[in-house]
Amino acid sequence: MRIASLPDFVLQRIDRAIGGPVNRQIYQVLRAAILSHQLPTGLQLPSSRELARELAMSRNTVTHAYEQLIAEGYLETRAGAGTFIADTVPDQIVDALTSSRNDNEQAGHVGLSVRGAHLIRRAGVSPLQWGAFMPGVPDVTQFPNKVWSRLQNKHWRRSRAELLTYDQGGGYLPLREAIAEYLRVARSVNCRTGQIIITTGIHQSIDLAAKLLGEHGDRAWVEEPCYWGTRSVCQSLGIEPVPIPVDAEGMQVPQSDGLHPAQPPRFIFVTPSHQYPLGTVMSLSRRRLLLEYAAAHKAWIMEDDYDSEFRYGSRPLASLQGLDTHDRVLYMGTFSKTTFPGLRIGFLVVPETLSEAFVTGHSELYRGGQVFMQAILADFMTQGYFASHIRRMRVLYGERLHLLQQAVKHHFGDAIDFSDGDAGLHLALHLPPGCDDLTICSEARAAGIITRPLSGYYMQAANARRGLMLGYACVPNEQIAPAFDKLAGIIKKHWPA
Amino acid sequence: MRIASLPDFVLQRIDRAIGGPVNRQIYQVLRAAILSHQLPTGLQLPSSRELARELAMSRNTVTHAYEQLIAEGYLETRAGAGTFIADTVPDQIVDALTSSRNDNEQAGHVGLSVRGAHLIRRAGVSPLQWGAFMPGVPDVTQFPNKVWSRLQNKHWRRSRAELLTYDQGGGYLPLREAIAEYLRVARSVNCRTGQIIITTGIHQSIDLAAKLLGEHGDRAWVEEPCYWGTRSVCQSLGIEPVPIPVDAEGMQVPQSDGLHPAQPPRFIFVTPSHQYPLGTVMSLSRRRLLLEYAAAHKAWIMEDDYDSEFRYGSRPLASLQGLDTHDRVLYMGTFSKTTFPGLRIGFLVVPETLSEAFVTGHSELYRGGQVFMQAILADFMTQGYFASHIRRMRVLYGERLHLLQQAVKHHFGDAIDFSDGDAGLHLALHLPPGCDDLTICSEARAAGIITRPLSGYYMQAANARRGLMLGYACVPNEQIAPAFDKLAGIIKKHWPA
Repeated sequence: MRIASLPDFVLQRIDRAIGGPVNRQIYQVLRAAILSHQLPTGLQLPSSRELARELAMSRNTVTHAYEQLIAEGYLETRAGAGTFIADTVPDQIVDALTSSRNDNEQAGHVGLSVRGAHLIRRAGVSPLQWGAFMPGVPDVTQFPNKVWSRLQNKHWRRSRAELLTYDQGGGYLPLREAIAEYLRVARSVNCRTGQIIITTGIHQSIDLAAKLLGEHGDRAWVEEPCYWGTRSVCQSLGIEPVPIPVDAEGMQVPQSDGLHPAQPPRFIFVTPSHQYPLGTVMSLSRRRLLLEYAAAHKAWIMEDDYDSEFRYGSRPLASLQGLDTHDRVLYMGTFSKTTFPGLRIGFLVVPETLSEAFVTGHSELYRGGQVFMQAILADFMTQGYFASHIRRMRVLYGERLHLLQQAVKHHFGDAIDFSDGDAGLHLALHLPPGCDDLTICSEARAAGIITRPLSGYYMQAANARRGLMLGYACVPNEQIAPAFDKLAGIIKKHWPA
Repeated sequence: MRIASLPDFVLQRIDRAIGGPVNRQIYQVLRAAILSHQLPTGLQLPSSRELARELAMSRNTVTHAYEQLIAEGYLETRAGAGTFIADTVPDQIVDALTSSRNDNEQAGHVGLSVRGAHLIRRAGVSPLQWGAFMPGVPDVTQFPNKVWSRLQNKHWRRSRAELLTYDQGGGYLPLREAIAEYLRVARSVNCRTGQIIITTGIHQSIDLAAKLLGEHGDRAWVEEPCYWGTRSVCQSLGIEPVPIPVDAEGMQVPQSDGLHPAQPPRFIFVTPSHQYPLGTVMSLSRRRLLLEYAAAHKAWIMEDDYDSEFRYGSRPLASLQGLDTHDRVLYMGTFSKTTFPGLRIGFLVVPETLSEAFVTGHSELYRGGQVFMQAILADFMTQGYFASHIRRMRVLYGERLHLLQQAVKHHFGDAIDFSDGDAGLHLALHLPPGCDDLTICSEARAAGIITRPLSGYYMQAANARRGLMLGYACVPNEQIAPAFDKLAGIIKKHWPA
């Protein structure tokens, strides 16, 4: 939206007939437009004087509305520059780390439940989803659209009713077969077609397993640090995440020395192939310990294998599931990284004894469908396009990782440490103690660079390492160095003396 | 699958290297294939003698596997005819009404949680999703595929990154605008764009609201009878559904006479425009009572408006949400009935005070996406195709309802009662007391007719009316009378003397 049209935008939306003070109405119109991203982050607003003149209202009316929005963090003033739409997301992250406000109080305010208020206050999701260095996003501009369109048109021309109606549970059979075949070969997953449940992604896979296998009040071990989504989905279901620190070998699985909580958890969430976000690989001895622990204590291991198709230096690693002889592992994967996130297709591999319950439960809870998308993906896999797209992206992302590593070294030499496991779609840059990653992220965004503070992935502030998550997969090669130059400037400004 | 290939199918899948008795392996292969629908319901299996010969195994081995599958209900023998794949779904429904087995015991068996076992045992979903008289399914063969394909190809050619990656929360803005506009005009919903949250359908809308506004242990009033999905999603989140009977005016909202439970619920789920499954419309006085009750007791009303685009005799009814002056109503809708179920797009309209929390919560919990599907749907709506498709379907479904009503009258005259509210996609046929709807459904399926027992929609057996749910929308006009002829024969067989 051009700034010039803002007065019209406001005028069209305020309705004096509704009643209530006009300043309140201006406040509501602007707030809703900011929340719905109709007014983008960083946009400069007209001065209160200008807007008042355009609206033919008193300046006080507009000033009141602006002040309220500034107080609530929707707008910010920059000295000598004016009033801008603020990026509210860093506030949420700061909140999660520093706030001592009570969830109950928060909840009462607009009627959210305690779990709802908790979820919103600790939300890790960002409204920005594209650009340097957005973590976890593949380069969707490289996706073979023409091939996909052709496969799509073929299915639409045929237009079979069974592809357009509700699914029959578990997902489209040929896709389940293709995934089972792929996982057996590429990931050493031990599975048959009936064990594959097609979901909309990792979040739904966790939700389904937590509902079918977990009770309210159960505990789940999560890696410290871990993916924010795992914690949020568990908490929304009354399952308490318990952070277990990771070291260079992965999650520190309990030994008999009583190091860990006596009460075993119901679930253990791990990313053994490529720890999220640190990038380490779980060692074989740690894998064995974990499997033994789960078998002895009847815990379910939730193996999140979100991006291990992309390994640049070494061959793919075998899955943890393939080592399991006690049927305690549920294996989760997604097509978000290998095709494009908007596809919203993932899968869950369950032990054979659970497959019937999971097929029924999935259908009952989510009323599955999108069979036509699943049919297109099945063709995409069985006709070889999936494998060749992955091969092509592996080369490309490998180059981009290398370019980013070079840029980091160029600016910081050995003074800065990073970890990437030579795999995946992101690199974790470690900052020295005392270097505030929240502030750096905030300033980087103002300069047009997206990055996330590593400390936000920790549950306990005492454990939190400072750092920056840099996604390189979606950044064109030639933009990597210039974008990092900008970021390096901001980091250097905050470098501890 | 042709029967001739069954021995090969089994041989390819049993692996003596895995170990364990061979009869167990045959059992597992067949069971998995039945559950994944690789072997369809009703298929005749070779005799145990034939299969043993083909597999080069002893007949006892095969007999043991068959016996186990028969005992567990996967196979059934028909006297003089042989062994067939059974339809296991009626068993689940019978179970839900008559079983006294303990969920805890069930849970222990394969490791399901208590809530998981409860969900699976009471599952209402069916593996059959197409054919006469499948309730709740529109005629997807009438969908304008060519128009859709054209809009789709336009977006794929442009291939903008923001349509292929994760969404920014709340859904694709132009679709939210189109829905807000549509709801204001067509359904008298009082809303602005920011209040629209795009979901994957009613189930996700319920899940989101229950997580953000409800606590574990809360209660939700549901209509008795009601849609099975509402109960299942609530229970999976620890929210207890409390059945409140409906009469000709809709849910019997509590008066001050102490008729209803003293403790007010957190949620009240209603279908005021077209009660599901009975088809009645909630009266205006009942609507006012309900809104007053919710405001006084701080309960959230969840208005499920799943099919009110299809009214044949009268003009569309205004929504309950539009009457609300206290911001206590969340309005839910779906495109499953108006376009096609496999689209998996629905929406939730929340009060303005909740919109920010719902946008963030939705993104955090489900990691939304499918923006490109949302973009196609937005075009489909704004270019007028949506409205004209609804108009065309309204005429067609009206004809089909009329044909079904005629068929019922032809066979039963005034001896049988039905309700449809002259709207929607299904008709509820009421059977006389003593006429067992479960048995009739079971026999109808064996004869190729899908119908659901009305008694299955009740939570309490004492309230349950016997009847049959007949979906007519997806049945071609000329097949309605012949299909009902078959069904009528079965009903007459079970008519009480």
